[in-house]
Amino acid sequence: MNSFGTIFRLNIFGESHGPAVGIVIDGCPPGIALCAGDFIADIERRKGGVQRGTTPRKEDDVPNFLSGIFNGKTTGAPLTITFANNNTRSADYEKLRSIPRPGHADFVASKKFNGFEDYRGGGHFSGRLTVCIVAAGVVAKKILRSVNEEIRCEATITEIGGERNLEKGLQNAIDAKDSVGGIVECVVTNLPIGLGEPFFNSAESLISHAVFSIPAIKGIEFGAGFAAAKMFGSEHNDAIVDKTGKTATNYAGGIVGGITNGNDLVFRVVVKPTSSTPKEQNTLNIETEEIESFSVKGRHDLCIALRVPVVLEAVAACVLADLLLLRVDG
Amino acid sequence: MNSFGTIFRLNIFGESHGPAVGIVIDGCPPGIALCAGDFIADIERRKGGVQRGTTPRKEDDVPNFLSGIFNGKTTGAPLTITFANNNTRSADYEKLRSIPRPGHADFVASKKFNGFEDYRGGGHFSGRLTVCIVAAGVVAKKILRSVNEEIRCEATITEIGGERNLEKGLQNAIDAKDSVGGIVECVVTNLPIGLGEPFFNSAESLISHAVFSIPAIKGIEFGAGFAAAKMFGSEHNDAIVDKTGKTATNYAGGIVGGITNGNDLVFRVVVKPTSSTPKEQNTLNIETEEIESFSVKGRHDLCIALRVPVVLEAVAACVLADLLLLRVDG
Amino acid sequence: MNSFGTIFRLNIFGESHGPAVGIVIDGCPPGIALCAGDFIADIERRKGGVQRGTTPRKEDDVPNFLSGIFNGKTTGAPLTITFANNNTRSADYEKLRSIPRPGHADFVASKKFNGFEDYRGGGHFSGRLTVCIVAAGVVAKKILRSVNEEIRCEATITEIGGERNLEKGLQNAIDAKDSVGGIVECVVTNLPIGLGEPFFNSAESLISHAVFSIPAIKGIEFGAGFAAAKMFGSEHNDAIVDKTGKTATNYAGGIVGGITNGNDLVFRVVVKPTSSTPKEQNTLNIETEEIESFSVKGRHDLCIALRVPVVLEAVAACVLADLLLLRVDG
Amino acid sequence: MNSFGTIFRLNIFGESHGPAVGIVIDGCPPGIALCAGDFIADIERRKGGVQRGTTPRKEDDVPNFLSGIFNGKTTGAPLTITFANNNTRSADYEKLRSIPRPGHADFVASKKFNGFEDYRGGGHFSGRLTVCIVAAGVVAKKILRSVNEEIRCEATITEIGGERNLEKGLQNAIDAKDSVGGIVECVVTNLPIGLGEPFFNSAESLISHAVFSIPAIKGIEFGAGFAAAKMFGSEHNDAIVDKTGKTATNYAGGIVGGITNGNDLVFRVVVKPTSSTPKEQNTLNIETEEIESFSVKGRHDLCIALRVPVVLEAVAACVLADLLLLRVDG
Repeated sequence: MNSFGTIFRLNIFGESHGPAVGIVIDGCPPGIALCAGDFIADIERRKGGVQRGTTPRKEDDVPNFLSGIFNGKTTGAPLTITFANNNTRSADYEKLRSIPRPGHADFVASKKFNGFEDYRGGGHFSGRLTVCIVAAGVVAKKILRSVNEEIRCEATITEIGGERNLEKGLQNAIDAKDSVGGIVECVVTNLPIGLGEPFFNSAESLISHAVFSIPAIKGIEFGAGFAAAKMFGSEHNDAIVDKTGKTATNYAGGIVGGITNGNDLVFRVVVKPTSSTPKEQNTLNIETEEIESFSVKGRHDLCIALRVPVVLEAVAACVLADLLLLRVDG
Repeated sequence: MNSFGTIFRLNIFGESHGPAVGIVIDGCPPGIALCAGDFIADIERRKGGVQRGTTPRKEDDVPNFLSGIFNGKTTGAPLTITFANNNTRSADYEKLRSIPRPGHADFVASKKFNGFEDYRGGGHFSGRLTVCIVAAGVVAKKILRSVNEEIRCEATITEIGGERNLEKGLQNAIDAKDSVGGIVECVVTNLPIGLGEPFFNSAESLISHAVFSIPAIKGIEFGAGFAAAKMFGSEHNDAIVDKTGKTATNYAGGIVGGITNGNDLVFRVVVKPTSSTPKEQNTLNIETEEIESFSVKGRHDLCIALRVPVVLEAVAACVLADLLLLRVDG
Repeated sequence: MNSFGTIFRLNIFGESHGPAVGIVIDGCPPGIALCAGDFIADIERRKGGVQRGTTPRKEDDVPNFLSGIFNGKTTGAPLTITFANNNTRSADYEKLRSIPRPGHADFVASKKFNGFEDYRGGGHFSGRLTVCIVAAGVVAKKILRSVNEEIRCEATITEIGGERNLEKGLQNAIDAKDSVGGIVECVVTNLPIGLGEPFFNSAESLISHAVFSIPAIKGIEFGAGFAAAKMFGSEHNDAIVDKTGKTATNYAGGIVGGITNGNDLVFRVVVKPTSSTPKEQNTLNIETEEIESFSVKGRHDLCIALRVPVVLEAVAACVLADLLLLRVDG
Repeated sequence: MNSFGTIFRLNIFGESHGPAVGIVIDGCPPGIALCAGDFIADIERRKGGVQRGTTPRKEDDVPNFLSGIFNGKTTGAPLTITFANNNTRSADYEKLRSIPRPGHADFVASKKFNGFEDYRGGGHFSGRLTVCIVAAGVVAKKILRSVNEEIRCEATITEIGGERNLEKGLQNAIDAKDSVGGIVECVVTNLPIGLGEPFFNSAESLISHAVFSIPAIKGIEFGAGFAAAKMFGSEHNDAIVDKTGKTATNYAGGIVGGITNGNDLVFRVVVKPTSSTPKEQNTLNIETEEIESFSVKGRHDLCIALRVPVVLEAVAACVLADLLLLRVDG
């Protein structure tokens, strides 16, 4: 259940406070040059450590290649990348066992796994696992570029706490001593026409499936998205203007009938405010069955959306790499 | 690629103007009573024939059981349901071959399938296929109720053309001689805690995957959805108030960490305006390579959102039936 | 669970005495010419009607195309082929409900499906469904030939009742008034090197998986097969003699390390004697819980192996078509 | 492609001379007690180090748990087990690059992966990876016993080099300075009735699929197997003798219609002679394109069949654990 993809297939594993998190990438074509240095830029972007609003926690995330690489290139066998968990303080979490943190998976995980789940720091539900997704994204982006050097997959934050001035949105949260949500947009350019399948595996289906595995994401829209509800058909329809399928507008976000149409693929996601907020909150102590007041100590991001862009790029790149490999004509 | 689900698995087939559309449902438990009458209500709802804004096209959709039923009950073998296509006028479409209709899949389908696609009436991309989804939904709802008689899965239109007064939204479109979009909300009540998997198969991942196979849907949001971008964490977090996991608010939409939390599962989708609008539009004639003015004749819905609620219920019910069957404890 | 394949994916449905049996083939490339006439030869071979030892039951098996074909060619959308069940006499079977036929699935099906299974004529377990496999094989063989015109996939009976003189083996069974088993060999020539995956999806794994869905097959061996147990390594190793990978001998049956090596792919299966034998047998009446003597009336093959070659070719062709489509380089 | 199973799903990775081999087991139920000590017995059996005919190579195979275990029990999240590769001498292999070893995957791997494969010691094709399968088998056997304490899954060698006296078969090979093949039988007792699916996922299909991922296996037969080709139906049919489905004989090997029937599940496999034989052989030098004489130095098993029983048990246990977890009723 912790896997995704048809040919380029991801299998993710690990817990926040276990020895390591990792990913097995099956179906990676042979001959792709890969070294630890290729991962630095995207892994750094995920840390968000230099930005206000992200946690100062130091994570020296060095990819460890367990399999699938030989003489600096992928072999075609499963590619396994792990990241050691060095900087963990389990004691912070263990005392919270009887107080499921609001907004976190603590309560549902305990019910689903009959109390056997690793509850330290979110365990397998932790945002920590997104470092594995980012690593897979680095590989996927290389596959995209091997098909067409011009393909770009880039995500940016467009809004924090309702403000398009991101500094202001963050400052509002800092002033309120609270966490805050945001919106991230991803654009993929120079994709070929024809990726996606009409029923059940539309490009939107596969992208949204992968996107909703990123913790904290609660909505996705393509092209005009929710604004389309207010539009007339004559406005929303994108007129084709030349033989390559280029359209005058791009309200469809580059996908028609579930299939990429060669225009920019555009989608946006909403990232909920970090569940761990410095503000005092009420929650149930499931042992005493009494409502307790509760406040999160320690290192937490005020705005988890700041870390999301590189993760969003990664899942989009993984889905698109898979669709490219699935084309019968390669 | 035209299939979905792990245990309760859908395989859809057919074209708008072929002999029939149909669905093979694998993994349906044995012993579920099923007759044609069970399908009437939901199939009628999909037609939307009595509502303003939907097409007057008559579709006598009678389910034809090809396999998997014996003595009025499911057998546990694949359940195949087909619907004959009686009321089709192919000639309407054939002349449009060189003019890909704006907003439709005509152009991408032709590229993807090298010109071999059945282009009549959208072919395999047609909204016609949603009758099969509705049929699967009828079976899935029976499975939900066999687990808990109180589970309800209900969708309603909440907005047309930006108006919460649906009559007004429709009238605006009629006045403008144009098609119009809308928003549909689905609520599932009395689900157990624990459906969904942490990575890649979160409840949101699976529902959105299935939802984006419905033609014309361009966005989905769970609980507070995109509004969460403007919220502080202390607002968005739903405080647990009793041992069953009931929360004071439901901004998470019944899903935390990708897992159902026992509260109402709530999601909304945006339905784009019908691509076939009576308004005159410009598009490319791919043979002459000249821009032509173009207008849709014949029977078309002004607001396809009016037909969506029962389809949305169906895909949600199919996903949830699968997740219920996947639970190791049955 | 009633499906197989990754890209070229089969979904089978139907019961022996239901309205029809059929197959949905997903992932079939567009542009393959297909008409009912293409199926005649292989469907006739499956009937075995002119051979001694097969049942005289008349089955006018005409393929009915429900979807996926347009203007005589595949469209790339799911291809659905059904065969009506015209010639069934259910009454023959209903009285046997309390006496599970020895060697048949009656007893296990009743347990597995809690008594809701369609028990007439074997229901979904019937050999009748192999007509769908044969139809899929016709399509798969076309895909093989589209890759390389020289690929041939041919199966023959090599042994009946232990006799390499097939007439003698059959006559022995006729004389004994009993049914009899046999061995069928399949050879595929001119395959490319490199089909199959090292772990879990070896060419042998996929072929055997598909082969064991054919009723009555109880063993499979590749190349030297079970005889390899008596060989020394220096005998069994096939020496490569030229740059194309041609080997001096072919004890490996064309597969090394789970991957096709470009030599003839050779495998053999054992077909058990038809469970329905004219001989009187004992079995349990599960209602009275007494042992009853029992004998099969009606039309039954003495040697079901006679019908197997074309089915064996079909499953081999389906597996190999899928592997060919899975190659990243097409 | 390097994965197998529906709920209890194996993902294998690693190369013989890479840093480690490992397996990610998804879908493992929570709450199963697991420690390194549980693996010792089966891992020791795989080494075959005390038996004549197996290599003296020392492998201190200690399982390393990377994820999915907390407080000594499985958590329900993916369970990752790795084994470090300590004892490798790559130089032995690198010089053979231009001389594909007869019977080995060297040649096909090079073609399939365009020369990028890790060719040292068989790379990803190495028998070394079966230590991961054995580890998964230890977990699977625990799941079988959690369903029914009486389920046993046991395999033994029944024949070496055609001799039922195993010592004699081995001595013949030692005398001939050659490697030799063998036959291994696996018996699973006390399984419930009803495991397996009629089409494509028969119990035989799934077991054979998994079995043929074990290197060196070239055939499999269930129950009477190939001997059934010589039998009459009245002989081969197993008469049911009581209400539990017990049969007087077990020529079906515990599977009828692809479904377990509650009797002992019995199957046999043939293991080809070890490809690395001390005997001098001829093979092609693909660079010089000349036939060279070639002989294997170093540590190699004379009879790889001696190591197979515990691996065969493991794959059977994994398939059956998955089928048990797939039952709708748990």
